[in-house]
Amino acid sequence: MKHNPLSQKAQRTGPPPISWIMKTTLENPDIISLAAGFVDQETLPTSGVLSCCRRILEEDVRGKAALQYGTTIGHAGLRESILNLLVEEEGMSQAKNKGTPDNVVVTTGSQSFLYLVTDVLVDPGDVVIISDPSYFVYMGILEGVGADVRGVPMEDDGMSIDGVRRIVEQLRTEGKLERLKLIYVIPYSQNPSGITMSGKKRKELFGLVQETRKEAPVFVLEDCAYRELRYYGEQVAPIKLLDTENDSVIYAGTFCKPFSAGLKTGYGILPEELLGPVLHQKGNLDFGSSNFTQCIIDEAIRSGEYKRHRITVCEGYKTKLKVMLDALDEFAPAQMRWVVPQGGLYVWAAAPESIDTGREGELFNNAVSKGVMYIPGEFCFCPEPGRQKPRNWMRLSFGVESRDNLREGIRRLVEAVEETLAG
Amino acid sequence: MKHNPLSQKAQRTGPPPISWIMKTTLENPDIISLAAGFVDQETLPTSGVLSCCRRILEEDVRGKAALQYGTTIGHAGLRESILNLLVEEEGMSQAKNKGTPDNVVVTTGSQSFLYLVTDVLVDPGDVVIISDPSYFVYMGILEGVGADVRGVPMEDDGMSIDGVRRIVEQLRTEGKLERLKLIYVIPYSQNPSGITMSGKKRKELFGLVQETRKEAPVFVLEDCAYRELRYYGEQVAPIKLLDTENDSVIYAGTFCKPFSAGLKTGYGILPEELLGPVLHQKGNLDFGSSNFTQCIIDEAIRSGEYKRHRITVCEGYKTKLKVMLDALDEFAPAQMRWVVPQGGLYVWAAAPESIDTGREGELFNNAVSKGVMYIPGEFCFCPEPGRQKPRNWMRLSFGVESRDNLREGIRRLVEAVEETLAG
Repeated sequence: MKHNPLSQKAQRTGPPPISWIMKTTLENPDIISLAAGFVDQETLPTSGVLSCCRRILEEDVRGKAALQYGTTIGHAGLRESILNLLVEEEGMSQAKNKGTPDNVVVTTGSQSFLYLVTDVLVDPGDVVIISDPSYFVYMGILEGVGADVRGVPMEDDGMSIDGVRRIVEQLRTEGKLERLKLIYVIPYSQNPSGITMSGKKRKELFGLVQETRKEAPVFVLEDCAYRELRYYGEQVAPIKLLDTENDSVIYAGTFCKPFSAGLKTGYGILPEELLGPVLHQKGNLDFGSSNFTQCIIDEAIRSGEYKRHRITVCEGYKTKLKVMLDALDEFAPAQMRWVVPQGGLYVWAAAPESIDTGREGELFNNAVSKGVMYIPGEFCFCPEPGRQKPRNWMRLSFGVESRDNLREGIRRLVEAVEETLAG
Repeated sequence: MKHNPLSQKAQRTGPPPISWIMKTTLENPDIISLAAGFVDQETLPTSGVLSCCRRILEEDVRGKAALQYGTTIGHAGLRESILNLLVEEEGMSQAKNKGTPDNVVVTTGSQSFLYLVTDVLVDPGDVVIISDPSYFVYMGILEGVGADVRGVPMEDDGMSIDGVRRIVEQLRTEGKLERLKLIYVIPYSQNPSGITMSGKKRKELFGLVQETRKEAPVFVLEDCAYRELRYYGEQVAPIKLLDTENDSVIYAGTFCKPFSAGLKTGYGILPEELLGPVLHQKGNLDFGSSNFTQCIIDEAIRSGEYKRHRITVCEGYKTKLKVMLDALDEFAPAQMRWVVPQGGLYVWAAAPESIDTGREGELFNNAVSKGVMYIPGEFCFCPEPGRQKPRNWMRLSFGVESRDNLREGIRRLVEAVEETLAG
């Protein structure tokens, strides 16, 4: 007699799609990957990071402090720098937003922050509203905690607020409104759709949440992973800035995309009520992320290295995005369409409707045999029971590959689409 | 109407004792802290780490790879180096132990590994056996997952194996044996008692677990945080080496204590059956720890810097331990006793029996007002319902303070003990 040793959570947690993507990449080493969400290899700041390491480690007291344990909440200097960036770039203010470094928690990438917040709020059966499509790694977290996930369609200016309202009403009818915990939004260049939420919708969503909070313990979880990667359009302030009571919006940010993924440092800004519970949980999880990488990022911000680097990074991605869009314009058949993003790392594209872009579909195999890979849209749509997911979408990343490869990748992909169409 | 937004897990998770310790330290900045489990500030390897950073970042391809995302399981080179160290130092072998780099998972400190493993195995009400006293931060994890924690007394040569056997029998009687998931052991210089488990007991425990696994999905979780910090006595091989099928022992290790806490890098070696579930969970948690700090540690190991540093660290701690023991010999009254450890960072000491060492007790206040702090033993004993915890123990750390401060700290502590005795 041997029982299953795994916890309920572990039994709910399947292999992430990313393992399969990595496996396919390893098996096809020469493939052009429009799948990976990695950052641009060429622009990674080796000399900038080395200068920071030198300045930190060549000063004895400072160097030793950096190599010692830090605190659970994170490095005090970095938390101050994070807030200063948001003050300077977005007009956040301590007076209006009750934002102080004491509300900022530094984590091992923003993923770890999303995980902590979700673990602290969501029990099996609790409801989380997400846009449809959404970030598939976050959907993995939701699957693990056993959330009741409800999807809301994306529109050209962000997730449908009417859609959110309908779900709230439906939950009220079901008697489940009090179990609504989170509305998960990626307001900047959403992963995977590339869509940026308009200021109007941010306000509408915030207003709806204020109304709903009279009946439900719900928070907005605003994942701003791509806030710093904007190449076109006007900057729109984070939803967090509307939260003048600091009681209903959770902000998640990261230095992985705009600076260096290898330093794996993200952060969150928490409403007062959640600060204690998240810190207690993080006390158990790791009682503090790497102090050294936090010191490096703080030094990069304070020395100006971070801002200089961001300009370089954004210029690089802007060019790459243009290369991808130009190649789509040049090669794609008339039945293909795609969303032109203002920033981020992805172009969300639809193959002709008859094509199944899924991992078991004909297109994916054709594409791989031509030497190009993408993320099948099926990973990004909500897993609501009984639904028929759209079959013909793909997430195309312009983050990793060179400009030449991006053009060649799109050429191959379109060739695979045409071959699949021809049957 | 506003409902509690927190998950069951968050509701179970209280503030860790460490927050209170840090608060007391901050409020008393000149205090001599025999409480903090931090590592020795003086020996932190600033120049060694800087050399590693240089070698990594000055090579363009290598530097960029280090600043890119890594993989969920961790840096391949480092996982190989970790295994090589265990092969060389403990005689682990691929043939005998089925240990390959594919069983090694790198985490954000070993704490994060302990958290992941516990989350993946333990549901509320599942049973975990720990030694009594034990590591209080791990007890926080167990509280969070809602484990049914059963304590086993420590003896001079490690946790009582008869005690474990009695609990197994009791669980069988209760019909709960199938819910026994983990036996948590700190075999080297245990936190807080300083006791190293004998080779005989390691074998007995392993044998008992093999027997019990016929009826229960139980694993040994062997936390080897202090394996590398040995100053006296003979090296005893980890329990993991007995696990020739790689199916029942989970090994947790760390580079925080023997190298640098600020790099916050730990690891675990997993039985085959748990590798997938832990990696899936880590995929959701952070999809990989900092790649850069992993590259630094790998470079430190391969260049010999790590081993050289460990010798320095162990010499430093050995001297400090001697200073603390000498001061106890010199100052302590006859009714005080303490355990002489072979390694680690702590001396476990008992005040005279009439004294309550707890945070609300008279001794603690007297000690703080004399400018010295310790960890009250009450944090370290099992929280089994209805039990009367021993009241007079203290954990004294010799890790952080200078030799002069250690001697002065013990002098003050003894003064506080004598004053408290005098009433």
